[in-house]
Parts: sequence; C-alpha cells; structure tokens
Amino acid sequence: MNVLLTGAFGRVGTAIIDHLAERDEYDYTYLNRSDRDEYETFVADVADYDAIRPAFDGADAVVHLAGYPETDGTFEQTLDNNIRGMYNVLEAAKDAEVERFVFGSTNHVVGMYEVENAPDIYYPDFGLTVDEDAPHRPDSYYGASKAYDEDLGRYYVENFEFPKRFYALRICSVRHEEYDHPYGDAELGVDEGTWERGSDEYDEMVARMKAMWQSRRDLAQMVDRCLRDDSVEFDVFYGVSANDRRWFDIDHAREVIGYEPQDNGEEWDSPPE
Amino acid sequence: MNVLLTGAFGRVGTAIIDHLAERDEYDYTYLNRSDRDEYETFVADVADYDAIRPAFDGADAVVHLAGYPETDGTFEQTLDNNIRGMYNVLEAAKDAEVERFVFGSTNHVVGMYEVENAPDIYYPDFGLTVDEDAPHRPDSYYGASKAYDEDLGRYYVENFEFPKRFYALRICSVRHEEYDHPYGDAELGVDEGTWERGSDEYDEMVARMKAMWQSRRDLAQMVDRCLRDDSVEFDVFYGVSANDRRWFDIDHAREVIGYEPQDNGEEWDSPPE
Repeated sequence: MNVLLTGAFGRVGTAIIDHLAERDEYDYTYLNRSDRDEYETFVADVADYDAIRPAFDGADAVVHLAGYPETDGTFEQTLDNNIRGMYNVLEAAKDAEVERFVFGSTNHVVGMYEVENAPDIYYPDFGLTVDEDAPHRPDSYYGASKAYDEDLGRYYVENFEFPKRFYALRICSVRHEEYDHPYGDAELGVDEGTWERGSDEYDEMVARMKAMWQSRRDLAQMVDRCLRDDSVEFDVFYGVSANDRRWFDIDHAREVIGYEPQDNGEEWDSPPE
Repeated sequence: MNVLLTGAFGRVGTAIIDHLAERDEYDYTYLNRSDRDEYETFVADVADYDAIRPAFDGADAVVHLAGYPETDGTFEQTLDNNIRGMYNVLEAAKDAEVERFVFGSTNHVVGMYEVENAPDIYYPDFGLTVDEDAPHRPDSYYGASKAYDEDLGRYYVENFEFPKRFYALRICSVRHEEYDHPYGDAELGVDEGTWERGSDEYDEMVARMKAMWQSRRDLAQMVDRCLRDDSVEFDVFYGVSANDRRWFDIDHAREVIGYEPQDNGEEWDSPPE
C-alpha cells in the first residue's frame, strides 16, 4: 500500500514514521514544507495545489497532517493552511483517485466541553463523555477550521467517487518522543524554565495530560487500523490512550476499527528518570 | 432596537423587510453590495472588513444574510463570501459590541440526509426527522461553508463578550413574493420555459416544496422571535413552515423561541390563479 504522509515531520507524523514506516506492507512518501536530511522528502506546501498534486499519483491512502497545528492560530493562519490546504489535499486525492483518507483532526473541534469544565474535568470520576456525535464546539479558529475540514471530507466521500473512505482522528495530545508520557508537557515546561516541578501549574498540566495523552504507539496503531479497515465511509474517532480520566469516547474506535490502546496515563506516578 | 440587516435585498432579506420593517420597535439599517432606489442602503461587501465596520456602530442586533446563496458555489466563491465574510461580520459585531446575532444558515449544512433519500423523502410518511443535533452532512461547498459559519459563531458567543446570543437559522426554501407558495419553484420553471406544468420534474419540485417551503411570513416571524428571545446563547433552528411532509424538526423552535408557523404546504392543491 502506497501511503502519502503530509506534514510528515511533526509530532504525529514522526510517531507514524517511528512505528509504521518499517512495516513491509506500507510504502511511505513524505510530503513536508521543509526537507530533512534523513528522509527523502517531497517538499511542497499544501496551500499550493499545483505543487502537491504530483505527490498523489499512485497513492492508495493519504494521511493528512499538514496544517497550522495550535489553538493560538489566527483566522488568516487557519484559512490558508487548514481550510485551503484541506480543499487542495481533497481535490488532489479526488483527481488522483486515492481511495483512503486519514485526517489528523483535533479534540479542539469540540474543545469547549473541556474549557467550560476545566480544571475539574482533569480529575477522576468527573463523569462527562464526549463522543463522535457531540455537536461541534470549537475553542479556537484552529478548532473551527478542523471542524470545517471534517465536514468537507464528509462532503467528498459522500458525493465524489474518490476518496472512498474518510477517517477523522480527533487527536488529543501526542508528544515528541522524549516527552512521550503524561508528565511530558509539564517536564517540557520545566526544561524550558516556564515553571517548577511541583507547582500548581505543573500539577494541573500532569492531571490534564493523564486524561489527554495519546502515546505515540497508540496513535500509530490507530492510523494502522484505519489503513486496514474496510468498513468505514466517514467516521470520527478520538485519538487518546486508554486513560482512566479521559472524557473522550474510545469505545466507538474499538468497535469500528478495532483500536486497542496499550497505554493509560494513570499508570505513571512520576516522570521517567 | 437597532437591527443591521446584511444581504438585505435577497429573498430572505426582503421577506424580513416586508413583514418587520414597519414595526415600531425595530429600526433597520440595510447593508447590501448594491444599492436600491427605494431604500437607504449602506453599500459594502462583507468580504471587506473596513468597509462594513462602520455599519455596526450602535446596532443591537445583526441579521446576517449576505453570502454566496446557492449549492452551485465553488470553493473559491464560498471562501470569500461565506467564510471570510462570516469572520468579518462576527469581528465587526464583537468590536461594536452587538449583542444579538441572527444568522441565515441553510438546510444544506445537513443536505445529504435529503440527497440520499430523494425523491422518496418528498412524499408523506417517509418517517425521517433531522433535528438540531444531527451531525453535519453538507451537500456542497456552500453547505460546508455555512457549517463552518455556525461553528465559528458558536466559538464567538462561547469565548468573547460579544455577541452574546447566536441563532443559526437553517432556512429551507423561502421564495420571492410572487412565488411564495409550494408551487413557486415549479411555476418559476414554467415561466422561464424550463419545463411544463404537469411534467414529472414539475410534480417532483412541487412535492419537494410542500416539504421544504418556508413562507415569507413564517420566516419573518422566526426572525422576530429571535430578536425578542432572552434565553439562547447558541442554538440551531430549522426555517420551515409547518408542512406535513417536512423532515426537519420545528418542535425545538416552538419550545425555545416560540415559533408558531402559520403555513403548511399541504394546504395548497394548485398554484394560485
């Protein structure tokens, strides 16, 4: 299976590369705005249709991760990178007859369920579950742009011949390899001198990440399950590990694509040495 | 109450003017891309923030109808007129501290429920009801852009001080005054020479409109109810008359804003003489 990975060298893309690139059944092409020495790269910006179009020839699947990735994005930043970018990638997939589209969406499509309940929602037994049918409640221009991207993807699979399958992964929190644990964001803050270990901010960040963390291997497994699935036309799955404190549903991903997360933030009592 | 009406001279805008403009309690300002002799007009394009911003000073409510209005719109047409246009209008409403935002959305946000069931869905007792919580299933770039607009409006009311109230009206089919009945579209086709009275296309159009019609007075009443409401932060209502054949829910609008539609497409056996 030929898989085109856009935004290949971000946190999520590298998790896929680390865990799936060596699999015999996948032949990856990496599309990214900038080059990396260690990988052969198709260098192009998803905001430029003509530049990206050739990368889609011969692809069986696209895993689309390129885009502005944070909630601080302005409307303009999300317009070019996420809204126009998604249109271009869907158009290229349609024209090149790419069958399968795995989309790196975000929990921020429904981020207001967290915002209105924070910080209580970060602690055990809060009792809220947000599932794939929850009405969109974006917390940012970023979240709104990804909501549009999901809707546009659904329009394509339901109206055009290609792509035939669309998987919207509302990814929660995937970290770089050196911070791939529920203390990752808090330890990153310590390393950057933003706050001290044991401060209120540190503790709240850990509490949040014990709910929101998706380990790199769990993310990669979820993508793998989407690439193997033959049942979905359009569906939404939450990208989160089997954290006791999660408020996002994973039963739907278990049932539909066979997601079997290996990690649970609650198993960590302290950061790794 | 000072009400700013954008896209004032379209089908929906003129229905509001015809039924609400003479009310003592409303003082309307008409914003439109082009002038009309009979009305004082603030001429500006919603794609240009600086041009529209002065029109928002002193407004208590905006009824935002301007935008590309049809399902045939390209991505580019919906990007400027509907996506950037909505951002500009929301920003202007935020900056000018406009309390109330009534948005002319469309049934095409969830248009695929119709597409996949047509034409059977146009006939009595089909049994489908699409309500305000139905997942977005746009049937066009136009529908996808309006879905984004609703999500962006929700982001604004839930995150900024203004606007405080947002009403997304998923309008079904409001016609010009001379075609304001369930035979309107079909008779328009006859008048334009597109088809003949009694043809299959004519009959199917009538069947569809008996389900989808919202009379001009019912649309105006729904807007009036939104302007008087003091309960909603964000909500979605379907703009349709009390048609027996409708598949869009109106109980929610009855309960929340007191919508009491006066018309029902089923009461018409023939076009008016």
